[in-house]
Amino acid sequence: MKTTPAQAIQDSHAFTDEARNAVYNAIFSRRDVRGQFLPTPVPDAVLSRVLTAAHYAPSVGFMQPWNFLVVKSDEVKRRVQKAFAVAHAEAAEMFEGDRRAVYQTLKLEGIVESPVGICITCDRERTGPVVIGRTHMKTMDLYSSVCAVQNLWLAARAEGLGVGWVSIFNQTALQEALGIPARITPIAYLCVGYVSHFHAKPELETAGWLPRLPIEDLVYFNQWGNIDNQHLLIEHLRRDQAAARAVAARAGEACA
Amino acid sequence: MKTTPAQAIQDSHAFTDEARNAVYNAIFSRRDVRGQFLPTPVPDAVLSRVLTAAHYAPSVGFMQPWNFLVVKSDEVKRRVQKAFAVAHAEAAEMFEGDRRAVYQTLKLEGIVESPVGICITCDRERTGPVVIGRTHMKTMDLYSSVCAVQNLWLAARAEGLGVGWVSIFNQTALQEALGIPARITPIAYLCVGYVSHFHAKPELETAGWLPRLPIEDLVYFNQWGNIDNQHLLIEHLRRDQAAARAVAARAGEACA
Repeated sequence: MKTTPAQAIQDSHAFTDEARNAVYNAIFSRRDVRGQFLPTPVPDAVLSRVLTAAHYAPSVGFMQPWNFLVVKSDEVKRRVQKAFAVAHAEAAEMFEGDRRAVYQTLKLEGIVESPVGICITCDRERTGPVVIGRTHMKTMDLYSSVCAVQNLWLAARAEGLGVGWVSIFNQTALQEALGIPARITPIAYLCVGYVSHFHAKPELETAGWLPRLPIEDLVYFNQWGNIDNQHLLIEHLRRDQAAARAVAARAGEACA
Repeated sequence: MKTTPAQAIQDSHAFTDEARNAVYNAIFSRRDVRGQFLPTPVPDAVLSRVLTAAHYAPSVGFMQPWNFLVVKSDEVKRRVQKAFAVAHAEAAEMFEGDRRAVYQTLKLEGIVESPVGICITCDRERTGPVVIGRTHMKTMDLYSSVCAVQNLWLAARAEGLGVGWVSIFNQTALQEALGIPARITPIAYLCVGYVSHFHAKPELETAGWLPRLPIEDLVYFNQWGNIDNQHLLIEHLRRDQAAARAVAARAGEACA
């Protein structure tokens, strides 16, 4: 392949193939972990690295609206677990018939078993009322804290740590369990720890709850709803989704 | 260091040091790019990989609520840019005095210059009204699409592609420009392309708009507000934040 000057510029910023694959491996083999936590403590050096990854998330207007509440106290974990249990029972009532029966068999959290809990929050008033980039989309600050969650999750996968995001809480009950003031929005309660294995697929996919969608059905060109099945991009997407599945399967087998 | 059986399990899931560092490099050297886009086309093979990374984001109840609208049409880009310009003028009015003057000098988007725009959306009704994990936190589906944004952003960094998230839009104007129905929530309009360089620091930090916060001030133990400056974790965090800054600076220099 001929190398043009523009190509040379691109290549100077692109990672090596090995490094690039490492990033994709983290993305494809990351799982939402609920049931495989080991009691092994997470060293502070490792915890520090994944928290630093979270802090390097993008944030709207550079407001960095997050805090990180690190939970290791068994008593606090039990309080959080109790808040989950109440909401979980309420949630079960919302599903009908067979769905409810299946819902009740799913393991959805590892709050007490995981050695570390991390609650990532959003302080919407951190830098005053007017924030660059939040003037029109008011939820952008919440989204910044979500980016911090995803950074932490991928860094954790590279460290061999499992992460499970628990969202089945009444917000005030979670705030009470962690002493979080009403003005602070809890974004995610994460269960973090080493794991016996990573599943090859999301558990809800394996359980037949919902299938993985074919990515080529999700892509539109220039306008909503505008599909083009003959586009070269679509062919690549089909191949890449199969490749991603294979990466995740290998990571799952390595753990079996 | 003695290797215990638990340690062996951990190590079997952790990435090699090189692979782990690649993930951290993507996280620390990722920037919100507005001004350095090159006209070089992005090959479909590369675009496909970063879209596949987005599709492998976590999603609440495995609902995968996202679509990816790929914009290459100059006419559509100009419509999106016009929607930005209107909101940007409105936004300037919200800042007072000096802040307004500085705001008006900032370059906040590269909609027309970047070869590809990608709008990531959220279809909140995709899998019906009751979604596992969204029963109590109603915003979880929006957060899933944000995780897709962050996955794409990090994959793009590894590919040497810059990404800029433009959020200064009236939602309906953006929907009109892209033909997005009212029931679909646009989460992010991303400008994507190869770049002349990546900055060592966020532009708002360099401009003195806001400083990078010391991470050790953002971490609490077990309860909100509970600090412990003697904790070994705090010492690690200080060192890791300095290391992250150094990684980003090296990536910035390599591009200068």
